[in-house]
Amino acid sequence: MRGDPGRLLAETYPARLDLPTRFGDMDANGHLNNVAIAQLFEEARVQFNTGTARLFAGPRPRFMVAHVGIDYLAEGHYPHAVALMLGVSHIGTSSFRMAMAAFQAERCIALSDAVLVVRGPDGGAAPLPAILRERLEAHRLLG
Amino acid sequence: MRGDPGRLLAETYPARLDLPTRFGDMDANGHLNNVAIAQLFEEARVQFNTGTARLFAGPRPRFMVAHVGIDYLAEGHYPHAVALMLGVSHIGTSSFRMAMAAFQAERCIALSDAVLVVRGPDGGAAPLPAILRERLEAHRLLG
Amino acid sequence: MRGDPGRLLAETYPARLDLPTRFGDMDANGHLNNVAIAQLFEEARVQFNTGTARLFAGPRPRFMVAHVGIDYLAEGHYPHAVALMLGVSHIGTSSFRMAMAAFQAERCIALSDAVLVVRGPDGGAAPLPAILRERLEAHRLLG
Amino acid sequence: MRGDPGRLLAETYPARLDLPTRFGDMDANGHLNNVAIAQLFEEARVQFNTGTARLFAGPRPRFMVAHVGIDYLAEGHYPHAVALMLGVSHIGTSSFRMAMAAFQAERCIALSDAVLVVRGPDGGAAPLPAILRERLEAHRLLG
Repeated sequence: MRGDPGRLLAETYPARLDLPTRFGDMDANGHLNNVAIAQLFEEARVQFNTGTARLFAGPRPRFMVAHVGIDYLAEGHYPHAVALMLGVSHIGTSSFRMAMAAFQAERCIALSDAVLVVRGPDGGAAPLPAILRERLEAHRLLG
Repeated sequence: MRGDPGRLLAETYPARLDLPTRFGDMDANGHLNNVAIAQLFEEARVQFNTGTARLFAGPRPRFMVAHVGIDYLAEGHYPHAVALMLGVSHIGTSSFRMAMAAFQAERCIALSDAVLVVRGPDGGAAPLPAILRERLEAHRLLG
Repeated sequence: MRGDPGRLLAETYPARLDLPTRFGDMDANGHLNNVAIAQLFEEARVQFNTGTARLFAGPRPRFMVAHVGIDYLAEGHYPHAVALMLGVSHIGTSSFRMAMAAFQAERCIALSDAVLVVRGPDGGAAPLPAILRERLEAHRLLG
Repeated sequence: MRGDPGRLLAETYPARLDLPTRFGDMDANGHLNNVAIAQLFEEARVQFNTGTARLFAGPRPRFMVAHVGIDYLAEGHYPHAVALMLGVSHIGTSSFRMAMAAFQAERCIALSDAVLVVRGPDGGAAPLPAILRERLEAHRLLG
């Protein structure tokens, strides 16, 4: 992630979610805790998937998070808000990869990749439904 | 991580930490939350680093977590305890890589890699002190 | 708390903080977790105290939370935001009491009282500074 | 709570749960966070209720937490474990009150009361089942 300079630019990402931080997001170092940053990325991911789920009239696809990777680039600070930027970096047969970045005051403090797998009724991997695939294509990373 | 079968075996890791899970570690799916699993790995990492810090008579090295990656392999369950296995998979000039695994009932539910960088007084990367390097060598992954 | 009907009305409270909830605030019941609601009240309290601290040119008073009580009135839901209402219900010699309420969609889901003690340089209770007392008076519960 | 000296003594409580603390339980003050202490009390309460639920062959009673109060008496410290002491201080018609205390190194750092209401199939308050009442009686505060 950190090796790709485009990932550090907000304009690379087609979607954005602004979240306030909480006092409880800090740890004993007085900075945003690494795990709290993981929770902020989780929130961005969940909200994107909720937006997808709303497009389905019938049964909604279930996602399993298979992998999460986070590069911690700079200390995050409370009480400043975090801008979470999000896009889709890879679309596979039954999985896709989200690329995210967290910014505070125009500075990228962390990057995250998440691999999500679509699960069928039996719990195993299932092909991406067409509605999902279309939404993922519409949220490809830019540039 | 998940591509390496040795990483799924408890005997690969020289150190172990058993932690109880908490009701609050579950999310709305009724399983251990992905972020809660990240917190359990954080705990294993912090305790390992605390053990290192105790070896220093004078100023202790400061670590910065540069990267955390987690493969989620199976659902985790409350109220079962988690066995966190830990070893060192790479020792560089100013950084090292921890390899961790979380087990419940002999089943590996998650793998994690963490890259830690030693910081000097100016906040930048500093060479690994000899005491630290020796401890890391003593905790290399086995097999 | 719950015995006082005025506490259930948003207009009773002079201050308001709107916070989004997070997926991670839910527990296995699929509702906002009781402890997560406690964290939201903590956030309202911390932000009020931060606002107080900014009024001090010199050393800022330190607060110790001596007591927190929460009445849970109704289930809270994600992803809806929470409106945290806050006022001061009692001003003592070295302590004061905050009265808070959490609303979702005009419905009060929880009430909270918090007793804060001002600590002097020796860690013990100290008289409320005049600047603080003035601010507390300005934030008395209404009606 | 804090006005009752018996509540500060471990021998007042018939049940005990020892829990390790986590790095993530600390806040920016470097002490156990107030909300984290609330989570530890939640864990003691949930485990007690799980023990109750196991006694029921058929449908298990559902509990609603109506109130939680916590007196914070002293700073809590990581990485020390916490001993959570628990007993029943009041048994009503459809509700009961748990009395809890958190100790570190023989020192009481916090007291908590929790009022739980038994809910019937319609979601409203229901009489305490006999099995539950018997278990509560067996866990009365001592002394």
